[in-house]
Amino acid sequence: MPIYNAPIRDMQFLLHEVLNLQNYSNLPGFADATPDVIDAFLEESGKWHRDVLTPLNRVGDLEGCKRHDDGSVTTPKGFRQAYDQFRENGFGSIAQDPEYGGQGLPVVLAYAVNEMTSSANHSFAMYPGLSAGAMRAIHAVGSDEQKQTYLPKMTTGEWTGTMNLTEPQCGTDLGLIRSKAVPQEDGTFKISGQKIWISAGEHDMADNIIHLVLARIEGAPDGIKGISLFIVPKFILDENGEPGTRNAVSCGGLEEKMGIHGNATCVMNYDGATGYLIGEEHKGMRAMFIMMNEARLGVGMQGYAASEVAYQNALEFAKDRLQSRSITGTKFPDKPADPIIVHPDVRRMLMDTKAFTEGGRALTYWAALQEDLSHKSQDEAEKQKANDYMALLTPVIKAYLTQKGVQGCQDAMQVFGGSGFVEEWGMSQFYRDARISMIYEGTNGIQALDLVGRKLMADGGRYWQTYFAEIDEFCSDNDGNADLKPFIEGLMKAKGELLEATQWLGMNAMANPDNAGAASHDYLNLFGLTALGFVWAQMAKVAIEKQGEDDPYYKSKLITGKYFVERILPESSAHLAKLKTGAETMMALEADAF
Amino acid sequence: MPIYNAPIRDMQFLLHEVLNLQNYSNLPGFADATPDVIDAFLEESGKWHRDVLTPLNRVGDLEGCKRHDDGSVTTPKGFRQAYDQFRENGFGSIAQDPEYGGQGLPVVLAYAVNEMTSSANHSFAMYPGLSAGAMRAIHAVGSDEQKQTYLPKMTTGEWTGTMNLTEPQCGTDLGLIRSKAVPQEDGTFKISGQKIWISAGEHDMADNIIHLVLARIEGAPDGIKGISLFIVPKFILDENGEPGTRNAVSCGGLEEKMGIHGNATCVMNYDGATGYLIGEEHKGMRAMFIMMNEARLGVGMQGYAASEVAYQNALEFAKDRLQSRSITGTKFPDKPADPIIVHPDVRRMLMDTKAFTEGGRALTYWAALQEDLSHKSQDEAEKQKANDYMALLTPVIKAYLTQKGVQGCQDAMQVFGGSGFVEEWGMSQFYRDARISMIYEGTNGIQALDLVGRKLMADGGRYWQTYFAEIDEFCSDNDGNADLKPFIEGLMKAKGELLEATQWLGMNAMANPDNAGAASHDYLNLFGLTALGFVWAQMAKVAIEKQGEDDPYYKSKLITGKYFVERILPESSAHLAKLKTGAETMMALEADAF
Repeated sequence: MPIYNAPIRDMQFLLHEVLNLQNYSNLPGFADATPDVIDAFLEESGKWHRDVLTPLNRVGDLEGCKRHDDGSVTTPKGFRQAYDQFRENGFGSIAQDPEYGGQGLPVVLAYAVNEMTSSANHSFAMYPGLSAGAMRAIHAVGSDEQKQTYLPKMTTGEWTGTMNLTEPQCGTDLGLIRSKAVPQEDGTFKISGQKIWISAGEHDMADNIIHLVLARIEGAPDGIKGISLFIVPKFILDENGEPGTRNAVSCGGLEEKMGIHGNATCVMNYDGATGYLIGEEHKGMRAMFIMMNEARLGVGMQGYAASEVAYQNALEFAKDRLQSRSITGTKFPDKPADPIIVHPDVRRMLMDTKAFTEGGRALTYWAALQEDLSHKSQDEAEKQKANDYMALLTPVIKAYLTQKGVQGCQDAMQVFGGSGFVEEWGMSQFYRDARISMIYEGTNGIQALDLVGRKLMADGGRYWQTYFAEIDEFCSDNDGNADLKPFIEGLMKAKGELLEATQWLGMNAMANPDNAGAASHDYLNLFGLTALGFVWAQMAKVAIEKQGEDDPYYKSKLITGKYFVERILPESSAHLAKLKTGAETMMALEADAF
Repeated sequence: MPIYNAPIRDMQFLLHEVLNLQNYSNLPGFADATPDVIDAFLEESGKWHRDVLTPLNRVGDLEGCKRHDDGSVTTPKGFRQAYDQFRENGFGSIAQDPEYGGQGLPVVLAYAVNEMTSSANHSFAMYPGLSAGAMRAIHAVGSDEQKQTYLPKMTTGEWTGTMNLTEPQCGTDLGLIRSKAVPQEDGTFKISGQKIWISAGEHDMADNIIHLVLARIEGAPDGIKGISLFIVPKFILDENGEPGTRNAVSCGGLEEKMGIHGNATCVMNYDGATGYLIGEEHKGMRAMFIMMNEARLGVGMQGYAASEVAYQNALEFAKDRLQSRSITGTKFPDKPADPIIVHPDVRRMLMDTKAFTEGGRALTYWAALQEDLSHKSQDEAEKQKANDYMALLTPVIKAYLTQKGVQGCQDAMQVFGGSGFVEEWGMSQFYRDARISMIYEGTNGIQALDLVGRKLMADGGRYWQTYFAEIDEFCSDNDGNADLKPFIEGLMKAKGELLEATQWLGMNAMANPDNAGAASHDYLNLFGLTALGFVWAQMAKVAIEKQGEDDPYYKSKLITGKYFVERILPESSAHLAKLKTGAETMMALEADAF
């Protein structure tokens, strides 16, 4: 049975020692999040996730969700009880607005807890995860009445939410949406159409499900500019605000998927369901983007959260499994063979995954803190910078961390040898579940386009210029730190290549826009490497300062960081070399000549 | 329903135009393999694999194999009938020894047909595949009587074979084998023990199953030097050589695996089963290595065969799926959106997979021709060189092509967006099935160790020196070919880095053997890139010569090759940079400090 132990020490290191949350006590909610409070939270949460949620992971995979003839859906055995506990423990409301019953604590703390949920049970985590996305949209563009009506029950988790974008003919290209909204005399709309791949679209864990649905009001302009957003509750609320009449929305089927079997991926049929416009007419995409951007940060987290749990299990296996002797001489003469962790290539896979995962966590928590600052800071400059960084790094975090997280699952599986391919060891599930993270909330290719096509250019390039300047400043500030030198050198080299790539794009993307698309994947990878190089340098700086302390954690952190610089960061040059070859060869074949 | 069309034109290009099989008509069997015969064979085989075997692929995945209470195993519906046709078509005996009923045709032709089987249905392909491995061992070390007894029926496919190595406590480290062989007065042995992960260990497609089993004769030396190989037939043969008494070997269970559900992965229990020693006492590993080396080449083929079929389906999807407009302007104004093949990042995934797959095929066929030469050449120098190349390149082909093949499946899945994650589209199965190829027949990590620890050093480094010299010769011979210049430059750079890495190993592996292990993965990758660079340069040379001809194939080949040089080959530098950092950081953490 696979294990999971929340990496609490690493979380504490980031929250207390690297990000120094205590320095932000001027922000609402941060003063309440003292180190003691955070530690107690992490401790309790870690126990619950280890003991309750982890064992349900394989249950979810084996059992899946079941749709019954009446369209109702049953989640795997134990999910409902676990969800009740999840709600009661307040794990879903940590950073939610206190005005609607949330705890108002830092988003970055919510990320630490959400990471545990995702590592322990990806499928389960999606139920509250999708709900949080729906709440964000309601919070951002809903009327006061809509917020008062829906947010309190969603904050407690009594109701959950969904996002309904995709239709059979439209995924990325939401301008192709056909779902219709017909205005009614009472100001409501009748929503009709079919949505597919709706995660948590129907289930048995909540009293109501609040669907956010993109549809086109009759007579609206064509394309993306005619899309509006609607609230469509599973049960229409009665005069007391309680679930009343069943709405004309139902689950028409469940997808058979590669993974995340414990989450109900629904075909949702809207047959003249009652819907309420949220935000302005024809401006549905605006709300959707608000919801999506923060959701994408959460998906990036799922990437390294998957490699974290896969790594933990591979590490245990590598310490237990006895096979062959160390090439440098027998290490355990009393055993029939040495544990495979003595073999360099096994360590390579473990260290690759560890170095990526710890870097991914640091980058994500840093970004989550930017989310806090973007919402809560009173300093306009700080707020703008946080917004810029969120916008710039979100596609990088979503795509790079999921791609590398999936790779980490694959490497961890490889540590197991043949057992990795046998389902009961659980490594297959980690890969199969994590694989969706490269696809949903905008495929990784779309993230790369968002980065090169939108985020680099926005506000005259201010986002990346500010970010690059911060890297430069860090490097020059720490120029005299001899222990930090390899980190600074590695970072400067990667950042130099990233700058060169950025300039290359500036010179070549205008002449031929396909150059931007052709470069986008490698550019995003180069950006991801540089961003991880930056957080690793920051972590190393702290670890160097504290390495004299009687805690072996700092020494391990420094070695892991050094490994990142030596064994992962050198990939940057290949990405630069590739992207500079441009679009010509890539686009040269006629479709029929493939 | 996923499709598969055998890439016959590409196979013909390699067999007729690059490898020029007609130049080897002095070798036994090659004179019979005229271009016409080969073309007819490929054509017929392509049709059968497309029409019969491809549709059974998903059946096998969904239905899997079933073990019944009596220990018998039923293969998925249709497999047995397809296997009968496979046998009747002679697809399993193409390169087998005519002395035992084989067709005696070139191994490289068998590879082309085996590739089709593997692409169309990986699970199915393993039944004849394992059989071929067992036949190789019997052919190599069996007595004349053993060959006469077993090979004819195995050649026709009436009987199949297996390889029984792994036990619960021993995978890579076969010295830990516990299965026992007790000598009997009649010269036979009683075999007892449990073997796991035995592919095709029990099934309903053949009249007998000939198990090759590694076991330890009572009183044998400890470790690897006390292992012997035995023939253990499912049915002991009667006086007429027909299956008679049921032997005391049975399937105790089937593994639940990530993929290859259509192949029965068995726990095999030997309860005093009658076995016959094959080869010398305590020299079982020698036979096993003969069998394994050629089998590993076949596994490398499975790698690119998987990405071939995944690519074909992704290509069809990319031409059909309409989503968003080309960034350079609408391409299909009459459609609601452009097909996604217009988008550069979709092309990147297609071209990556295409460039790898065609290179992998070329490298594998070249190696298969070396296998022919190593068996059939009368020229001792040619024979030795062929043997050297086989020894050197087999671990590279096995590991690099499976790793990249799995990556190709992942990229092809990504082209599908959300549909890639939905089982009915079939992309998940291609990945899940292919994933085993990185693990079995020696994990890819073991291949890398074999390369740096054994093959580089063998015969004073003769293997790699000969191979590198051949690359140098090709490059200087074609120095004046302007069209070929980018290929030669790319190849020379990669080869230069590979040489540097080889020299680094020479200088550092003696001082600390962990440096070899720590470098092995990146060294193998660097070798794989260089080897693909070499075959791409050779293919490009032919395509350049023929590009004036009225066949668009040559132009596509050149563009694809150029893509390989621009977009894949640059990875070589990163591998060199990584491996030169040595073992120190990788090995620095104590096991408890992870």
